[in-house]
Amino acid sequence: MEVVSTPATERVEIDLGDRSYPILIGEGLIDDPATFDAVPRSSDALIVTNTTVGPLYAQRLEATLAQRHARVHTVTLPDGEAFKHWQTLNLIFDALLERGCDRKTVLYALGGGVVGDMTGFAAACYMRGVPFVQVPTTLLAQVDSSVGGKTGINHPAGKNMIGAFYQPRLVVCDLSTLATLPPRELSAGLAEIIKYGPIADAAFLEWTEAHVDALRALDRPALVQAVRRSCEIKAEVVGQDERESGLRAILNFGHTFGHAIEAGMGYGEWLHGEAVGCGMVMAAHLSQRLGLVEHGFVERLSRVVERAGVPVRAPRLDATDNAGRYLDLMRVDKKAEAGEIRFVLIDGVGRAVVRPAPDAVVREVIDACTAG
Amino acid sequence: MEVVSTPATERVEIDLGDRSYPILIGEGLIDDPATFDAVPRSSDALIVTNTTVGPLYAQRLEATLAQRHARVHTVTLPDGEAFKHWQTLNLIFDALLERGCDRKTVLYALGGGVVGDMTGFAAACYMRGVPFVQVPTTLLAQVDSSVGGKTGINHPAGKNMIGAFYQPRLVVCDLSTLATLPPRELSAGLAEIIKYGPIADAAFLEWTEAHVDALRALDRPALVQAVRRSCEIKAEVVGQDERESGLRAILNFGHTFGHAIEAGMGYGEWLHGEAVGCGMVMAAHLSQRLGLVEHGFVERLSRVVERAGVPVRAPRLDATDNAGRYLDLMRVDKKAEAGEIRFVLIDGVGRAVVRPAPDAVVREVIDACTAG
Repeated sequence: MEVVSTPATERVEIDLGDRSYPILIGEGLIDDPATFDAVPRSSDALIVTNTTVGPLYAQRLEATLAQRHARVHTVTLPDGEAFKHWQTLNLIFDALLERGCDRKTVLYALGGGVVGDMTGFAAACYMRGVPFVQVPTTLLAQVDSSVGGKTGINHPAGKNMIGAFYQPRLVVCDLSTLATLPPRELSAGLAEIIKYGPIADAAFLEWTEAHVDALRALDRPALVQAVRRSCEIKAEVVGQDERESGLRAILNFGHTFGHAIEAGMGYGEWLHGEAVGCGMVMAAHLSQRLGLVEHGFVERLSRVVERAGVPVRAPRLDATDNAGRYLDLMRVDKKAEAGEIRFVLIDGVGRAVVRPAPDAVVREVIDACTAG
Repeated sequence: MEVVSTPATERVEIDLGDRSYPILIGEGLIDDPATFDAVPRSSDALIVTNTTVGPLYAQRLEATLAQRHARVHTVTLPDGEAFKHWQTLNLIFDALLERGCDRKTVLYALGGGVVGDMTGFAAACYMRGVPFVQVPTTLLAQVDSSVGGKTGINHPAGKNMIGAFYQPRLVVCDLSTLATLPPRELSAGLAEIIKYGPIADAAFLEWTEAHVDALRALDRPALVQAVRRSCEIKAEVVGQDERESGLRAILNFGHTFGHAIEAGMGYGEWLHGEAVGCGMVMAAHLSQRLGLVEHGFVERLSRVVERAGVPVRAPRLDATDNAGRYLDLMRVDKKAEAGEIRFVLIDGVGRAVVRPAPDAVVREVIDACTAG
């Protein structure tokens, strides 16, 4: 395997005191041993991947890591949000224990957000904590789930209900892995990129509107800029509120409605980014009905989400009381407090607020946004 | 229920920066609402207990907590180390989600070490972390597992392999709950109390030798002193090394051999404290063979462990290669590094060191200590 050294690698520092770590963004990083210089030395490494990504990239990463670790093991999980549960997580623990991996073993998450969330949670729990590295291979994971330290699995009663805040030692965003990403997943990732403008940076929303076509076409300079700026904004927010006691909740713009869509349709039917994209449009509607933004913003956001290739009409979750079903599902959201749903709303472009909303208004929004 | 206010309540502060918490030691604490003054207010509380302890104390704790929380739920787990696994842990998550508990919900662990470890781990993971309170009802849990923030569950391949470091907000050692403790479990708790002398405080070893009969007879002043001093020593060690990177490992004196006994016999056959008691005698033997302590110390430790009512002869784990079986089981211990077993040894009474030992010497010790 040829070692590709890219002079154009960008670096974003996540500043969390003694849990700080860098994000590297570039081409061919998984083939370059220097990429992993900051990772602690250990005898054993375990690459956690899935049946889709493993055949494409696991051997290449194994070859690179063999220069750092005496034994590089790989465990391949079934692919998809539907498998983000305890039984799959346990495959990681089984692999670690079968191979006699000690508590210095480094875990490498090679895949999308599901692989990253499960690997991070396994690292948080194995022998009460081992180091891990994120190698996200989807656009969504590169701009969202690989930054911030949220790890976890789903419970039948709710998404990400069981997990930990646990930071990686390094995040490696190798843009060359996006070449094999299905267009639908690319679009889902774009939805999360679009998210950062409305909540934190009006100029970045304009930039995404101008570059959404270039991003869909995998234009490299556009991708680097989108991933870097998304990570920077997320890093800034997470750095101020690592454990989501306040500010950090704004990163969940679109997620309250989005989680209801994912749970109501059955995890895996809609991609997470698709549900968030549609959820952002719903949350924009709600913001407008509560007098926080102009009607024009709803149209504007809806248009760029649609151009990214993400659905903007909400699915029907119940034949008789659709809005009631949405409300029930949103009430078990982690952001809910004492049964009161807390929405992330846009209070002028570039600024988000978290607050409850009257059920009647939420029902109107759901009715207005639901397809068919 | 009469409220028993005890003027003689003792308080030990665990100093861990923003994760500091107090341990209260006294009589009738679970009936006194003032005991829980430091716990965060929340609408929901979940008492986690087991089928043995629940019928004895859950209603009393519920009545007390009803003054702090609008809704006090209880979930009752099967009793025993054999149930310290994912399926049982999931009963806690199910209870939380079925009752719509949000992320301010406070968990209360009412029971022994198994209930405490599982409740703590559930609290660490539920919605990525909710507050929890330890109400240990066994002597072992009061002096050991309720202090230090180690939480977790077993995996078929090893004990406590999956868990988290997660601190409680408060530990309540109500000595009146020891009245219902079976004698065998009382003895197991005494083994952990005996542990603190050899590793950290020679004078406390003398004290335990002088008071072991009083402790077995549940003499109150002796119990208060034993629990307080054990918690103080553990607190001092944990305060210097919260995440077990070095010093803290000395608290595992007796645990390396002990874990092999527990795993080899099948979890639950030997009580944890029994395995640790016997394991301490084995580790003392090993210390002596490596020239760290006099032969007299092995005899002395063996005698006080025996007087506590704990077995001092190791069980046979394999008919043909008993020592090999012990070694295999010890190699998957969390303290092992790259397959090298690290033993906690006594280097003069009151001082412990952590180091590897030649397999041949370990085999001699196992052969010398094994029953029959």
